[in-house]
Amino acid sequence: MGKVPLEKSNPKEKKTEFSLVRVKNTWHRRLGKQDNTDTVDSVSDAKLYESTTEKGTTWTVVSPIVFTYKIIETHNLLDARNDTLLLGHMTDQQQVEDIRELSKPLKRFIVVDQEVYKIYGSKLIAYLEANNVIYKILALPTTEENKSIEMALKIVEEVNNFSLDRRREPIIAMGGGVCLDIVGLAASLYRRRTPYIRVPTTLLSYIDVSVGAKTGVNFANCKNKLGAYIPPAAAFLDLSFIRTIPRRHISNGLAEMLKMALMKHKCLFEVLEKHGPMLLDTKLQADNSSCVTATSPATHVAIVTMLEELAPNLWEDDLNRLVDFGHLVSPALEMTVLPSLLHGEAVNIDMSYMVYVSQESGLLTEEEKQRIISCMLGLELPVWHESCTMELIEKSLQDRVKHSGGLIRMPLPVGLGQAEIFNNTPYEILRRAYEKWHYELSSSVKTDLPTPPNAASLPSFGK
Amino acid sequence: MGKVPLEKSNPKEKKTEFSLVRVKNTWHRRLGKQDNTDTVDSVSDAKLYESTTEKGTTWTVVSPIVFTYKIIETHNLLDARNDTLLLGHMTDQQQVEDIRELSKPLKRFIVVDQEVYKIYGSKLIAYLEANNVIYKILALPTTEENKSIEMALKIVEEVNNFSLDRRREPIIAMGGGVCLDIVGLAASLYRRRTPYIRVPTTLLSYIDVSVGAKTGVNFANCKNKLGAYIPPAAAFLDLSFIRTIPRRHISNGLAEMLKMALMKHKCLFEVLEKHGPMLLDTKLQADNSSCVTATSPATHVAIVTMLEELAPNLWEDDLNRLVDFGHLVSPALEMTVLPSLLHGEAVNIDMSYMVYVSQESGLLTEEEKQRIISCMLGLELPVWHESCTMELIEKSLQDRVKHSGGLIRMPLPVGLGQAEIFNNTPYEILRRAYEKWHYELSSSVKTDLPTPPNAASLPSFGK
Ligand SMILES: NC(=O)c1ccc[n+]([C@@H]2O[C@H](COP(=O)([O-])OP(=O)(O)OC[C@H]3O[C@@H](n4cnc5c(N)ncnc54)[C@H](O)[C@@H]3O)[C@@H](O)[C@H]2O)c1
Ligand SMILES: NC(=O)c1ccc[n+]([C@@H]2O[C@H](COP(=O)([O-])OP(=O)(O)OC[C@H]3O[C@@H](n4cnc5c(N)ncnc54)[C@H](O)[C@@H]3O)[C@@H](O)[C@H]2O)c1
Repeated sequence: MGKVPLEKSNPKEKKTEFSLVRVKNTWHRRLGKQDNTDTVDSVSDAKLYESTTEKGTTWTVVSPIVFTYKIIETHNLLDARNDTLLLGHMTDQQQVEDIRELSKPLKRFIVVDQEVYKIYGSKLIAYLEANNVIYKILALPTTEENKSIEMALKIVEEVNNFSLDRRREPIIAMGGGVCLDIVGLAASLYRRRTPYIRVPTTLLSYIDVSVGAKTGVNFANCKNKLGAYIPPAAAFLDLSFIRTIPRRHISNGLAEMLKMALMKHKCLFEVLEKHGPMLLDTKLQADNSSCVTATSPATHVAIVTMLEELAPNLWEDDLNRLVDFGHLVSPALEMTVLPSLLHGEAVNIDMSYMVYVSQESGLLTEEEKQRIISCMLGLELPVWHESCTMELIEKSLQDRVKHSGGLIRMPLPVGLGQAEIFNNTPYEILRRAYEKWHYELSSSVKTDLPTPPNAASLPSFGK
Repeated sequence: MGKVPLEKSNPKEKKTEFSLVRVKNTWHRRLGKQDNTDTVDSVSDAKLYESTTEKGTTWTVVSPIVFTYKIIETHNLLDARNDTLLLGHMTDQQQVEDIRELSKPLKRFIVVDQEVYKIYGSKLIAYLEANNVIYKILALPTTEENKSIEMALKIVEEVNNFSLDRRREPIIAMGGGVCLDIVGLAASLYRRRTPYIRVPTTLLSYIDVSVGAKTGVNFANCKNKLGAYIPPAAAFLDLSFIRTIPRRHISNGLAEMLKMALMKHKCLFEVLEKHGPMLLDTKLQADNSSCVTATSPATHVAIVTMLEELAPNLWEDDLNRLVDFGHLVSPALEMTVLPSLLHGEAVNIDMSYMVYVSQESGLLTEEEKQRIISCMLGLELPVWHESCTMELIEKSLQDRVKHSGGLIRMPLPVGLGQAEIFNNTPYEILRRAYEKWHYELSSSVKTDLPTPPNAASLPSFGK
């Protein structure tokens, strides 16, 4: 800092702590902790601190906000007799009963991915009509290229025209991660926070997007550069939507599942390793009997492991995050080649490289590395990409350091289903890992590349 | 609801409670409460609940986020030796010392109201230069008419170009409430949350905007229709900025001070009643000796009473809010006549009407009502406006009911410096209060109106 000698503005001043108590509708501060609640109507969890120096008074506000949200598995979400879509988010059972008994129509604003609308639109309309709902459906082309603040504002405008009671009429988003992310942001902005509901219709949004608090849109050619950390009131999970997504998008979702497996769940890894192709073939539909044993545990473990990591760190204040695995290089890669790679595919390419970094660092054996890469290929995920250059990797890791408080905080697998966070991986290792990765896996994509000299001795990753 | 008999999706299912514990960098859920922390590195305040029905599993996430922010009074904020602007937001004293000792230049992005920049720009630049700061100043016409998402996005774009370390380099906003609200929203959107700092330069933003968590922009011709509840990292209060605002804007700020006085602080009301004109004359500058006895207590009480109400209800989840006094009808009024009324002026017109409602309801005596209106006039605030029609009032109150969970929740003074929240004020009273209000006070504005029949017997509100 500065050329000028600075006065110290923070001498060790005495702080006075105040509790906040409510008497009728008025809040008062009271010295110290307030355990005796006989004379007041309530005591807040918030605190006020006050200290005084010669320059004046400093107040410090410490105020916790508690986020509560539900993730509900259900079948037949659009069956008219299933009221989850309309009432599942509610927490007060009495209120639910009251609404059920009243014949007052409910009002809902629903944003649906355009492709999803083509397939499920008539069923959705039939559901809403059967339940006497006053509704507006907005079907939008929520693609990655359209994931912008403009689309979020368009939604807000329509919501505003529809005139919702923002306390009681949550906005419903139905679609893949793009749709859920945009609508989540629109709802979070509208009147500083309007509750919203997520109905994921892709595997990726089912096991990942719907579980956390993040919303966002792309901006200035950067992934999710604008957004908010506001969880939905609820996410309603109906796996049968997944039935209609293309096979490639199943792989895409399995990439995020594999991430959690590699970071913290060896059994899940083994399920993906063993049953990956079957999960792809059956599209995780549990009515397929050969699938039921693997699907339900797999999605459950994916969700629970994700929740374990997200719930204690909902706003990502702790920068050491295992869920960032696969997300250090992939955002730049995804935006560079847009729309050629799906989110999970870019994540997988990032993870594939990092597996090489782990092996090169002695954290994974060669055999473990091979098992992981084979598993990825079994899930039909790309394990290498020509645009994922050493330059892109370096640039991404530098950005990471900048935005992570000066440390790289790189999650790396340490054996199968376990991970740690590293800050001092030498550049030399990153470079050697890159070369090996490029050398061994580039042929997994481009068959017209010259055959590497000792190809015969390489592990076979062929499908 | 619906025509179809609905299956009940919420039977009384057993919920299992999990705590979340961290071992190294991995979080695990553990059954029940975790008091024994010997074997783990930390226990989260968040909880996970799981329950299962025939339809699948439901998870409930309960996750508290703690907001901490400082409000710091200081003198000579732009004196190069005062490091509050650069370091005052920091909470870790050791970090502050480290930065002071390092000679690494700090980096700051500063958005300043254009008018403020004209007056204080050179001083600000001198300050930044003297402290060797790498900076970018963005001077913008942050007027109420420009308070839009477009301006927030323009700021985000410039911030993005400037390339901040969003963990350590807060965005600084310097100006009136409009500037602070727009920048607050821009910062809250950027990377899902970038810390920002408020430097209020008007009285209204000093005692009100800077104290709470709200940010916002106007949208679809509605006040603050888009926004977020994200408090700044800190607000730095230097009363000397107020010196250069026009007298009308002092009145404007005093309106919000009067609000707190009427709701919960009789002494503050008496200060405003007695010293109002002097506060206006001296622009609350404490170096004016006749003022020092009133100013400092007045701003302190205004801030503390406001903090008492805001801290326990930072996200306005409790809909019963005394701070809403003056804000039920004024938003629509302000937008209707934009730019002719300032925020505090519109608030005061709303309060003035509500005082009549109180008196008509028997909550205030005629004498108390007169004292309040006289005090308002002494503060040179408008107490009536022709655009504040009964239709506008009705429409606003209906909107209020809609957005406040079905109840009107109308804060009304009950004697001087005390208030309660009412839900059942009959329309008849609202109407009679309006007529009396119109009859008694319209002449306070338009002198060319026909004299009401018994004008002689009316209280004299003349200045
Ligand atoms: N918020 C978070 O925490 C989080 C986490 C991970 C990813 N994301 C975001 O999620 C996005 C990716 O989500 P995605 O993979 O779901 O992509 P997507 O939303 O683009 O959907 C993929 C494609 O499938 C179509 N589709 C969706 N459901 C369908 C169905 N049931 N049947 C047939 N077609 C269907 C869509 O129209 C689209 O073409 C990215 O933008 C990423 O940034 C967010
Ligand atoms: N976030 C909140 O909690 C909250 C609370 C109350 C009001 N508000 C918002 O605050 C806004 C009103 O704020 P305001 O009254 O400060 O208006 P403002 O920001 O429009 O400023 C008023 C005028 O004073 C000028 N100015 C500012 N500082 C000056 C100085 N030191 N010297 C000379 N001129 C100066 C400005 O250029 C402007 O023309 C409204 O938009 C309102 O919605 C927000």
